[in-house]
Amino acid sequence: MPSDTVTAAPPAAGATADFGLSDQLSGLMNPQSVAVVGASANAEGWSGMAVPVLRRLGYTGKIFPVNPKYEELNGLPCYPSVSAIPEEVDAALMFVPQKVLPDILEDCGRKGVRGAVILASGFSETGEEGRALEERLREVANRNRIAICGPNCLGLANLDSGFMGLTAATFPEDMSAGRTALISQSGQLLMVLLARAHDQGVHMRYLVSTGNELNVEAADYAGWALNDPQIASVAMALEGLRTPSRFLELARRAREAEKPLIVLKLGRSQRAARTALAHTGKMAGAFRTYEAVFRQNNVVSVDDPLELAEVAALFEKCPAPRGERISVVTFSGGWSGVVADQAEALGLPMADFTEKTEAALRPLLDFTPPVNPLDLSGNVNNHPERWGQSLEAVLADENTDIVVVFIHQVREAWRGRLISPVLELARRSDKPILVVYDGGKVVEAGFDQLAKDRSLPIYRGSQPALKALKRFVDYHRRANVTADDTPRPDLPDGAAATMKAQLAGNGRSLSEHAAKAALRAYGLPMVGERLVMSEAEALTAAEEIGFPVVMKGLADGLEHKSDAGLVHLNLKDAGGARAAYGDLAEKLAGQTLNGQPAPCVVQQMVTGGVEVILGMQNDPDFGPMILVGVGGVMTELLDDVALRRAPLSRRDVKDMIGETRLGMLLQGYRGAPRADRAALEDAILRLSDLAVEHAQEIESIDINPLLVLPEGEGCVAVDALIVKPEEATQ
Amino acid sequence: MPSDTVTAAPPAAGATADFGLSDQLSGLMNPQSVAVVGASANAEGWSGMAVPVLRRLGYTGKIFPVNPKYEELNGLPCYPSVSAIPEEVDAALMFVPQKVLPDILEDCGRKGVRGAVILASGFSETGEEGRALEERLREVANRNRIAICGPNCLGLANLDSGFMGLTAATFPEDMSAGRTALISQSGQLLMVLLARAHDQGVHMRYLVSTGNELNVEAADYAGWALNDPQIASVAMALEGLRTPSRFLELARRAREAEKPLIVLKLGRSQRAARTALAHTGKMAGAFRTYEAVFRQNNVVSVDDPLELAEVAALFEKCPAPRGERISVVTFSGGWSGVVADQAEALGLPMADFTEKTEAALRPLLDFTPPVNPLDLSGNVNNHPERWGQSLEAVLADENTDIVVVFIHQVREAWRGRLISPVLELARRSDKPILVVYDGGKVVEAGFDQLAKDRSLPIYRGSQPALKALKRFVDYHRRANVTADDTPRPDLPDGAAATMKAQLAGNGRSLSEHAAKAALRAYGLPMVGERLVMSEAEALTAAEEIGFPVVMKGLADGLEHKSDAGLVHLNLKDAGGARAAYGDLAEKLAGQTLNGQPAPCVVQQMVTGGVEVILGMQNDPDFGPMILVGVGGVMTELLDDVALRRAPLSRRDVKDMIGETRLGMLLQGYRGAPRADRAALEDAILRLSDLAVEHAQEIESIDINPLLVLPEGEGCVAVDALIVKPEEATQ
Repeated sequence: MPSDTVTAAPPAAGATADFGLSDQLSGLMNPQSVAVVGASANAEGWSGMAVPVLRRLGYTGKIFPVNPKYEELNGLPCYPSVSAIPEEVDAALMFVPQKVLPDILEDCGRKGVRGAVILASGFSETGEEGRALEERLREVANRNRIAICGPNCLGLANLDSGFMGLTAATFPEDMSAGRTALISQSGQLLMVLLARAHDQGVHMRYLVSTGNELNVEAADYAGWALNDPQIASVAMALEGLRTPSRFLELARRAREAEKPLIVLKLGRSQRAARTALAHTGKMAGAFRTYEAVFRQNNVVSVDDPLELAEVAALFEKCPAPRGERISVVTFSGGWSGVVADQAEALGLPMADFTEKTEAALRPLLDFTPPVNPLDLSGNVNNHPERWGQSLEAVLADENTDIVVVFIHQVREAWRGRLISPVLELARRSDKPILVVYDGGKVVEAGFDQLAKDRSLPIYRGSQPALKALKRFVDYHRRANVTADDTPRPDLPDGAAATMKAQLAGNGRSLSEHAAKAALRAYGLPMVGERLVMSEAEALTAAEEIGFPVVMKGLADGLEHKSDAGLVHLNLKDAGGARAAYGDLAEKLAGQTLNGQPAPCVVQQMVTGGVEVILGMQNDPDFGPMILVGVGGVMTELLDDVALRRAPLSRRDVKDMIGETRLGMLLQGYRGAPRADRAALEDAILRLSDLAVEHAQEIESIDINPLLVLPEGEGCVAVDALIVKPEEATQ
Repeated sequence: MPSDTVTAAPPAAGATADFGLSDQLSGLMNPQSVAVVGASANAEGWSGMAVPVLRRLGYTGKIFPVNPKYEELNGLPCYPSVSAIPEEVDAALMFVPQKVLPDILEDCGRKGVRGAVILASGFSETGEEGRALEERLREVANRNRIAICGPNCLGLANLDSGFMGLTAATFPEDMSAGRTALISQSGQLLMVLLARAHDQGVHMRYLVSTGNELNVEAADYAGWALNDPQIASVAMALEGLRTPSRFLELARRAREAEKPLIVLKLGRSQRAARTALAHTGKMAGAFRTYEAVFRQNNVVSVDDPLELAEVAALFEKCPAPRGERISVVTFSGGWSGVVADQAEALGLPMADFTEKTEAALRPLLDFTPPVNPLDLSGNVNNHPERWGQSLEAVLADENTDIVVVFIHQVREAWRGRLISPVLELARRSDKPILVVYDGGKVVEAGFDQLAKDRSLPIYRGSQPALKALKRFVDYHRRANVTADDTPRPDLPDGAAATMKAQLAGNGRSLSEHAAKAALRAYGLPMVGERLVMSEAEALTAAEEIGFPVVMKGLADGLEHKSDAGLVHLNLKDAGGARAAYGDLAEKLAGQTLNGQPAPCVVQQMVTGGVEVILGMQNDPDFGPMILVGVGGVMTELLDDVALRRAPLSRRDVKDMIGETRLGMLLQGYRGAPRADRAALEDAILRLSDLAVEHAQEIESIDINPLLVLPEGEGCVAVDALIVKPEEATQ
């Protein structure tokens, strides 16, 4: 059991508390004694069932029923109040109406209770009145330093100690503990998942329905569970995050502990986000941002509640794979075909058996060739021993990292002959073995036997097995990636001061010229350009920059320069430059930029290179997010961008480039020269650094296109826009 | 029962027979009497179980055991041979060794037996010897006009008549008939699917494991089943097609009958294709081609065996939907969020309730708002009647076309209260209703109750339910699309003769100039160009075409002209043209084209327009396939093409354009003018027509880019290549 003596700072009123790994959280998740407040003799309701359930699950701590109406309940002395209990009380389960909760919490505080489970609803999820009541409850809880699970939840359970503070219509039969923690903001989802997972032999160790998260958040429970050495993974169903930084800290700790977080993010769609808001008052952020944060932190993101258990099964029951090559053993050519197709579609590589394996298999196969997927149909009917022998040969294959075994349509007489060798091999194997056991209710007894054994991940179909396996290998691959030590580019002196000076101007967005000056100060290469106020200056600038040039007009309110006819491209000589200046001067007459007469800018005309879009967007939850993708005219057509949270590591930058078609373009697409990838990487890192430094002052940055020139020639941005937050200009 | 008196032509030896809807096929699928050849007293083996099983399933026809060893078996007279049976015999189930099969088939032929099921393996799937035996069996069967199921299969069953010629380790308990036919080339897949489907209340009517398809193919069984008015859909698991044209004919008939084919195509990946070949000797064609054929014929293509039943459930139990807007009723905000997210990810639109529906729901909801997905949690606990009332209100909603009902974690006492209203409403509803019943074994009794009722499609999770629903609405939308009556472009006179003349040249590929001449003859607009043999001719041609021009060198073996430095673009004046000609003349010195000195070609320089790739590829199974997609430099980067089998309808052409980013580009992307879509459509139709006309003589055509100019200006091809089949040049 985790335990920790860190004492958290007292939380601010109105905010969830940050109990860290304090005694409070341990009091809630692993209490040595529990008061059942409002316990009753009503065998139908939870107030009456709570004590018997704690006993049935073999709760290892002390139980104190509290209800002034009874002297005794379920054979235990019953106390009129929590403070009347003569011994120490760690946790309280509350079965009392919402109105009396503040007083009871005060009483708990006096008694030194550290955690309480509040199931009652009727709080912030119901409107103004409920919100006020919740606020009052939070104030009392925080002042008394009581960690609260709920309100408006189904409660929590510690199946290791038998502490069951969870209410539900039904429970699986065997509630013994496994090695997965399941934390869900939705109670119903938790209960369905618990039942389905147990059916497949994936038992939970901790179960939490977090409800309105009065002063303990999903990330807090997850962090506490992570500290338990018995925990193999933490599965979470999240509608939103109250404090995103706590989730980021959790993800960091999970990486350190080498235990995966498996997360289902709800509220990806607008409609679901609205539902979540109506449901528990949680805001659901943009899923694209979450997805980026998950990927960056090697959080295993899943699409369906059941996947939480299907993936957790692998982490609980299997060793880390040495690689990603899978081998498959079936009883059918048809199923071999299905699994080969599905593996390819998911990007799971299939092993090619070594010659040694082929030689070992050949004498065992009368009808089928020794290839992967291995089809044993017909070969085992008269030689049951060949089943185990074939599995053993495949498991020993040096090209095989993971083995998927299909068992289908098992006649009762064959059940033992097929299942026992698999279990036997699994005990000795250091490679992951998955079983797909498919055939419906007529073969359910075999499925149940494997599920009850609990030593192997089992699935009812190939699709869920392979999908879970893909998440599993992706996690391990990412976890094993080594950092990229190439030094980061240095930030030039005075960069921050230049940026601040440019941001000090009027208007929400900086002029292109100002934006470029600010970005150039950070070492981001910008196209050569000069601000000019007269035809003579324009001509001199053009001569010095060198023809051909581009000429643009800059004015407040005319950020969309092309649409306003303020861009002249490819001016080849003095005549062209003169004509362009004349046109711009006419259009800019009377316009201003930052209170000064609107100027023109003369720029170098750069062509060629790979067009990249590079951007920053300040996310309300996660701060500056950096975006990289295919730029120029293709931007919208391809919508091919990668997103990460700043600060970025060089590894992040490499991943981003690899995720998009930029990877292919930079290699030299269709005969183009190989582009200067290192220069692009540095530019992205510079943008990340400046985004972090000015997170409070910049809402977004848009550099498009950044031209990545041939190798050794660097990159150069042609256009740039910086927008300040709304409040900065008010 | 379907029956048909069409008599098929006698099949060629060595080929599968085409029994069409003949008596032979009915004799196999719906026999009035059956001989069990090789029946025995061995209660453990299928030779002993076959007769008792036929009786247990209540087979409505006559049963004749055949075995010279017995006088009587299972209380029936046993005959020494088939010809010794004193009555008519429609079908024979064979439980005899492979070696004696030819003689027994001859005996069956003498008796007038029309169909036989041969389970034995050891034929073409095992090698040369088996292949010879199979060939001999086919000769005997075809000569005697006996339709054969198998060999190397698990057999077939007609659950309507109780004719059970299927062998398997296990069967579902209730084998009564449903409204789905399941035809699988893989026997194991058939059996697993049968069991899983029955568990979900989807019963089969016909079951066929086709095995080696001696003289009856998967498409033949499917076509026969389609004729049964009780059949709602035909589900097929296919490794490959022996005779692709029969599948196309089947698909045509299915569309006419308004009954879907639901197909799982195995062997999509190379590895699986290899497996299929080893398994039953079937070649698996390129999945991309199958996918195109499926889409074009509104075949419902699925990714997983279980989907076959999950989709079939909807066609069996639900009326056609009026539209695609779904409404969802749950007991949980969390599940509401899950389903809204998953629906959006699948592209299933959610309904917005009408004000009338909101008004009807409001009094039924104490805690949650009247929005879709509707979260009833808490509202029904004290008012069970609100469940049915809420469902009724949602079902009556005018914006709602389909209703998905979630039932989770049902306490035993509530089971009837929740299930009965759903079944009651389903009986009255003309809208599809799906039930997601999720909560594992603890609530299995409720799941089973719904499955046994068989009136509603039920699913164990939201993902399979919504995925199946998406296939269902896509099928109905496509089935309801009306034809596009815009006239097809006329084929110019003499087009075929011009093509033939150009194809008569040497070499496998036509020169660019020859290819363009041939395509131009079919009315496909080609860029203006002239073949020239001297500098003077080149200059005259350039003047007449008008500068700027393009000049290219043409020579045998130098089809990749750019790589060979044989392309000069954007020649602006006579000086440029002269220099280009000089360069080409030097490079072409000594080269030839079709035996003549290599010429140059002067072309109009066309710029602008949307770049399209337009191609034809002759598929070994399906003949000429037409390909349309984003062309020019983007071709490989985007890999964004649509494929269809020629001949194309105008509707096909519109679908192809809409499937790719061309749809967006043609509308006028990033300020470009709207492009001439009608001209592109006509060009595609012309290519389709010429591809059909010259299917034997052309292997592939590649037109890239075809420039689609602004509306009213047509389109023009800049480059074209035609390749002849290998044999044509040998």
